[in-house]
Amino acid sequence: MSPAITRRHRVRWCECDMFGHVNHTAYLLWCEDLRVAHWESLGQSFCPGGVGPVVARLEARYLAPLAYGEEVTLTLSVPSLRRSSFVHDYAVWRGEQQVFACRAVVVCVDNATGRPIPIPPEARALLTGRDGALAE
Amino acid sequence: MSPAITRRHRVRWCECDMFGHVNHTAYLLWCEDLRVAHWESLGQSFCPGGVGPVVARLEARYLAPLAYGEEVTLTLSVPSLRRSSFVHDYAVWRGEQQVFACRAVVVCVDNATGRPIPIPPEARALLTGRDGALAE
Amino acid sequence: MSPAITRRHRVRWCECDMFGHVNHTAYLLWCEDLRVAHWESLGQSFCPGGVGPVVARLEARYLAPLAYGEEVTLTLSVPSLRRSSFVHDYAVWRGEQQVFACRAVVVCVDNATGRPIPIPPEARALLTGRDGALAE
Amino acid sequence: MSPAITRRHRVRWCECDMFGHVNHTAYLLWCEDLRVAHWESLGQSFCPGGVGPVVARLEARYLAPLAYGEEVTLTLSVPSLRRSSFVHDYAVWRGEQQVFACRAVVVCVDNATGRPIPIPPEARALLTGRDGALAE
Repeated sequence: MSPAITRRHRVRWCECDMFGHVNHTAYLLWCEDLRVAHWESLGQSFCPGGVGPVVARLEARYLAPLAYGEEVTLTLSVPSLRRSSFVHDYAVWRGEQQVFACRAVVVCVDNATGRPIPIPPEARALLTGRDGALAE
Repeated sequence: MSPAITRRHRVRWCECDMFGHVNHTAYLLWCEDLRVAHWESLGQSFCPGGVGPVVARLEARYLAPLAYGEEVTLTLSVPSLRRSSFVHDYAVWRGEQQVFACRAVVVCVDNATGRPIPIPPEARALLTGRDGALAE
Repeated sequence: MSPAITRRHRVRWCECDMFGHVNHTAYLLWCEDLRVAHWESLGQSFCPGGVGPVVARLEARYLAPLAYGEEVTLTLSVPSLRRSSFVHDYAVWRGEQQVFACRAVVVCVDNATGRPIPIPPEARALLTGRDGALAE
Repeated sequence: MSPAITRRHRVRWCECDMFGHVNHTAYLLWCEDLRVAHWESLGQSFCPGGVGPVVARLEARYLAPLAYGEEVTLTLSVPSLRRSSFVHDYAVWRGEQQVFACRAVVVCVDNATGRPIPIPPEARALLTGRDGALAE
């Protein structure tokens, strides 16, 4: 499955801890950046009265440490979707080596009420047609 | 299983996003605070030539949103351990309601080499005797 | 001038950089915590249609580094005020040694328009009567 | 004075607060990114036994709020230097409008002792010759 989004990133000073390793939350903020960009690529936006993507579940595996200044590639794929939610697979690569993997379940919610709401039709069409997501 | 560590926290301004919800990484930094405190309670410290606790895997479930200023209770339990790793269960409670659950696999590594190393004996004794961790 | 707010803090793991020093922005988030608490102590809140405290200017001096786990005291004083703004003096102390000083100019703005607005009367009364702020 | 470094940035979701404005510390982390890149452009690095750039003083002015997704330009200039320190001027621009200004005094320290140390000669040559810094 080819990624829906691919980005390059150079590890920032503020992302590293006392032992010189990227803090485990920095990876998740990179994922957030991809998630937000992906949401916008679905023709969606962030407004209080609209629909928003909420992370309900995260599974992250830290496969190898990263250090300050390293260049990495970040990818986002969308393996599957349901009525009101879809799955994001994030990966971080240092060259050919995958150093991080994360799967998130993202639920579409009505921002006004916080309740789940069906994926908007135009987003669903792109998730299946463009991104290759399969209905579960 | 009673928690090995329990803390109170009031949600900070800097932990909230544009929609007024606590960002998903803020929960994980609370977990990190508990993990670090727990490591020290095992008689361990953080030094370049010693043993350190590294998160290899995280599974987080976001059960209900939190808002600025809310008072929550954070808990850490240690259900199980292996030769070189142990499991942490983190929870966030708003009164009687659990709003967040996270399980982490924490690996003891030699900080100098980054390689797994057996749990130090005095730490193992506390994990099983004090914290109630079961050998897997 | 005695502080309007005094708090204790233990330096968190996530606040330290690769050289083991507290990152310069962590101090400013401690100041933010004090600023927010002080605003609430003035009988004010944070709501989109109300009045909010906005930092217009900061002057920070980093006097000595701090390390992970150190216990510090944080203080906030309010030396002076004008029609729509007041001054905050923040300090961080390690025992008797001051390790950080920061002065901020905080402007009251109409959250709906972003425009400056006079300090609410009940807040002004507390700033001068309780906190000892002098009119400039 | 033309900037020593210029970068583009799109405001991240995690940089915005509950009122939809970029948090005041996010600007300072952008400055940190520029400072670190500038240090490396001087032929210097970050190693425990070497020389490091430490912020001793910051003066920041927040001129206009920024919102999620806005595109900004970040610049760093070096107006002056002394024996062991130099001055950084950071600016953030939204188109032609300057929305943030910050001046920092950066001290070269011996990372092993934390004591000030003269600016390394090759760095001094670049600061004056390439960046246009004037001796105070």
